[in-house]
Amino acid sequence: MRAVEDVDAALELQLVGIGTGNPAHLTLAAIEALNQAALILLPRKGEDKLELLDLRRHICARVLDGPVRIVEFDLPQRAADGDYLAAVADWHEAIAAEWLRQIDVHLPTGGGKVALLVWGDPSLYDSTLRIAAHVQHERPLHVSVVPGITSLQVLTAAHRIPLNDVAAPVMITTGRRLREQGWPVGADTVAVMLDGNCAFTTLEGAGIEIWWGAYVGMAQQALVAGPLGEVADQIVRLRAQLRARHGWIMDIYLLRRRSRG
Amino acid sequence: MRAVEDVDAALELQLVGIGTGNPAHLTLAAIEALNQAALILLPRKGEDKLELLDLRRHICARVLDGPVRIVEFDLPQRAADGDYLAAVADWHEAIAAEWLRQIDVHLPTGGGKVALLVWGDPSLYDSTLRIAAHVQHERPLHVSVVPGITSLQVLTAAHRIPLNDVAAPVMITTGRRLREQGWPVGADTVAVMLDGNCAFTTLEGAGIEIWWGAYVGMAQQALVAGPLGEVADQIVRLRAQLRARHGWIMDIYLLRRRSRG
Ligand SMILES: C[S@@+](CC[C@H](N)C(=O)[O-])C[C@H]1O[C@@H](n2cnc3c(N)ncnc32)[C@H](O)[C@@H]1O
Ligand SMILES: C[S@@+](CC[C@H](N)C(=O)[O-])C[C@H]1O[C@@H](n2cnc3c(N)ncnc32)[C@H](O)[C@@H]1O
Repeated sequence: MRAVEDVDAALELQLVGIGTGNPAHLTLAAIEALNQAALILLPRKGEDKLELLDLRRHICARVLDGPVRIVEFDLPQRAADGDYLAAVADWHEAIAAEWLRQIDVHLPTGGGKVALLVWGDPSLYDSTLRIAAHVQHERPLHVSVVPGITSLQVLTAAHRIPLNDVAAPVMITTGRRLREQGWPVGADTVAVMLDGNCAFTTLEGAGIEIWWGAYVGMAQQALVAGPLGEVADQIVRLRAQLRARHGWIMDIYLLRRRSRG
Repeated sequence: MRAVEDVDAALELQLVGIGTGNPAHLTLAAIEALNQAALILLPRKGEDKLELLDLRRHICARVLDGPVRIVEFDLPQRAADGDYLAAVADWHEAIAAEWLRQIDVHLPTGGGKVALLVWGDPSLYDSTLRIAAHVQHERPLHVSVVPGITSLQVLTAAHRIPLNDVAAPVMITTGRRLREQGWPVGADTVAVMLDGNCAFTTLEGAGIEIWWGAYVGMAQQALVAGPLGEVADQIVRLRAQLRARHGWIMDIYLLRRRSRG
């Protein structure tokens, strides 16, 4: 994707990274952006994500010094069938239209700052910037991004490990790709996100360490680390238990294998 | 590297990510950690890094509510010759010894929280966790990490771009590796750090976009984006000018090529 375009516009969309559940991970810049917003849009994503909506409400309540208009709205659903990338693009367009509808209702002057709370950092496996680009096709709009702490950083902080070996590269990838393509070429460290299904179980465990975390930064945080061969089963079981207990789960992990040079 | 070990200890070392120059990028957790420290260690790294030391002093002055003992000390130098990884390990050991010396002088009870301000996030191309592991060999010590906004996030935020394409992987690597090994296998997006020498000039530009930034998050921030073939020379020239003007430079960039599937 290209960068969103810079325009002179009375309307500004601020994508504010809020970290992954620990309100203390908010930056001063994020808090300032939320306080200066004329409107904060809070999408409702369905029953299972209710806890995450609550967390966003809680963050707003905690950091706002004065009254800011907060509007909750139902997020359109993504088509489950058809071509994946095409379905995603249609879905983003539908969300963009919904944002504009809410802005027109709640900011009738058509100007001001509209803030969106983005989980983690807006750059990492998140659609908000792509949706903002759709909005820009419809309306002159200034877009700004406030960075936030990612789940990957909370994972490495919780385990107190560096992301990379000294001067070595790191691959960030998805569970689906790890499952389909195996250990990526060219890096001995791999960070895996968006894994609904424990793709690490498809690897030969020998010589690989894993640092796993679920709900990182949140009250429910769970961590497991060790040689993959020794802890993989434990993670699979724990993940299933946690998911059953909480009704949903988000997890992330780092894999490192003995350097092959 | 393995994780630092968890121990019960009266002494706690807190590695506090402070972002990359914009004090508004500090998190509430970072501010709290600095305020609760019994001692903050500020290393002096030599003339050319004086500006970065000043920035750390400024951050402390700005966020500390009450008096906290701040101690500046000269960082040992790394041996310039011999095996690189061995020289790095020796250097880390020397720094660990210096930390302990400062702690013994300034925390004579041997207990309390010692905070270290880490540029960006402690996980990303930073040695502080490795040095902390050396300290743990000498002294029972609890280590904790407070995540901070990385230069990579400030880069993508400033350019208002996602790090990854939809569901696609990202390689984070160094200028040296890009120069020596060319475009990494397995990813169409590459983030490059620690590049003293514009390694992007060694790539065939066709089909590649670059988003470049120097001093990201700082007052001197400079950004260039465009097709690599069109803007590479401009970046090389601008980088040389900026470096001459400021006496030092730090830059980072994201490269994306047309997907090859
Ligand atoms: C759609 S991506 C969003 C990532 C987010 N923008 C960030 O910066 O972390 C969702 C994925 O991020 C990871 N993730 C996000 N929050 C998490 C959390 N609190 N604990 C563990 N993993 C998390 C999981 O891998 C999840 O599948
Ligand atoms: C030793 S690494 C430390 C990275 C840091 N821990 C982080 O999270 O960004 C130094 C490299 O980070 C990048 N970097 C750090 N700060 C930067 C800044 N303000 N502007 C541009 N690049 C920066 C550059 O690529 C530099 O060579």
